[in-house]
Amino acid sequence: MSLLGAQIVRVGHGTCEIEVPFRDEITQQQRYFHGAIGDSAGGYAALTLAPPDREVLAVEYKVNFLAPAWGERLVARGEIITAGGRLIVCKAEVVAISAEGEETYCAALQQTVATTPAEA
Amino acid sequence: MSLLGAQIVRVGHGTCEIEVPFRDEITQQQRYFHGAIGDSAGGYAALTLAPPDREVLAVEYKVNFLAPAWGERLVARGEIITAGGRLIVCKAEVVAISAEGEETYCAALQQTVATTPAEA
Amino acid sequence: MSLLGAQIVRVGHGTCEIEVPFRDEITQQQRYFHGAIGDSAGGYAALTLAPPDREVLAVEYKVNFLAPAWGERLVARGEIITAGGRLIVCKAEVVAISAEGEETYCAALQQTVATTPAEA
Amino acid sequence: MSLLGAQIVRVGHGTCEIEVPFRDEITQQQRYFHGAIGDSAGGYAALTLAPPDREVLAVEYKVNFLAPAWGERLVARGEIITAGGRLIVCKAEVVAISAEGEETYCAALQQTVATTPAEA
Repeated sequence: MSLLGAQIVRVGHGTCEIEVPFRDEITQQQRYFHGAIGDSAGGYAALTLAPPDREVLAVEYKVNFLAPAWGERLVARGEIITAGGRLIVCKAEVVAISAEGEETYCAALQQTVATTPAEA
Repeated sequence: MSLLGAQIVRVGHGTCEIEVPFRDEITQQQRYFHGAIGDSAGGYAALTLAPPDREVLAVEYKVNFLAPAWGERLVARGEIITAGGRLIVCKAEVVAISAEGEETYCAALQQTVATTPAEA
Repeated sequence: MSLLGAQIVRVGHGTCEIEVPFRDEITQQQRYFHGAIGDSAGGYAALTLAPPDREVLAVEYKVNFLAPAWGERLVARGEIITAGGRLIVCKAEVVAISAEGEETYCAALQQTVATTPAEA
Repeated sequence: MSLLGAQIVRVGHGTCEIEVPFRDEITQQQRYFHGAIGDSAGGYAALTLAPPDREVLAVEYKVNFLAPAWGERLVARGEIITAGGRLIVCKAEVVAISAEGEETYCAALQQTVATTPAEA
């Protein structure tokens, strides 16, 4: 996630939160960032529940763009819906957070992740 | 919803719950029922927040099939994610409920609904 | 597909066409029929390319509703986008065909199908 | 699209093709680029059919990741499925093209775009 300047700020059992500070590229290319960090947050959430000998591979996602993002930080919160051995279904929300801590709901994702044998 | 034998059993501000008793058609055509009642639950949830002079029109949905449904009843719970004047974004979950009240999460939907002027 | 009165009318290498004659239920419940037969057409198209010892299982689909359906027949045409050993991605279109043969494009689907070991 | 180094290389009536030369960021962040340029190609395709006094606004998209991208260029081809006055439905494919001109199908998108009054 180097391009985005994004960081994983919280990881739980089946959850992941990614944060990226606002900068001009985000304002100019909101949809890209919303899709990208939402997808990443869901993917990492999936990874927390993948069997230890398996990696995760994005199969597909669907994203709704809800509102323009303005604020201090963009935060994506990924969460598992169900986890099977081979397929994991996740959701993610992307919010913009102002300096005062007020959140704007910017994007909602639902995605499918496959697990594959980890390479040695 | 006459074909499905489905009934709206609960309606709130931006929420709707639809229930259909199990029968052979549901077992044989699970995907069809899961998509249909999930889509309906989200659509009716959207209708609760549509402006009074407007109707709702399904634009699109995405559904993940999570598990086969076995049980006594199939229940879909729709909920608004965000509601604008012209577009409403919803989610819905479909669960099968056993005679003992145990729930199996069968399908997850995310959908977009448009509002249109109500016909006189 | 007994409930729908639908029939597979054409099957090719990675393609499938399903047809259902119009009747009142279709007019009243268009979205259900559009989603259901589109999903079926894609699923059967996937089945034509699944390895012989494997079955197909619907993972998810996304459907856009494009226009109301009026006509003599509703036809869904499923087609493979790409087929891997474990996951197959398909698209499907649903059209209403009038007595004069004119087509109205009613729904567009994109879906993911998994292959699983066939039961003996 | 400055961040991506992407360029519109072809525009038609309801179609748009966007190209981005390969570089390390694309290899490292394939999903991000696939979603982003596919979404853009569909959005610009929609813009070619939007009424002259209206702009386009992304509502949602769904993307399937089909194969890793390796090559010389990444190309996204967007195309209108149906265009109404207020909503336009598009599809897009993303392919990686090798120096020898061989194409790998990397991603398939289906998306919804709304038209809104253009700002003066």
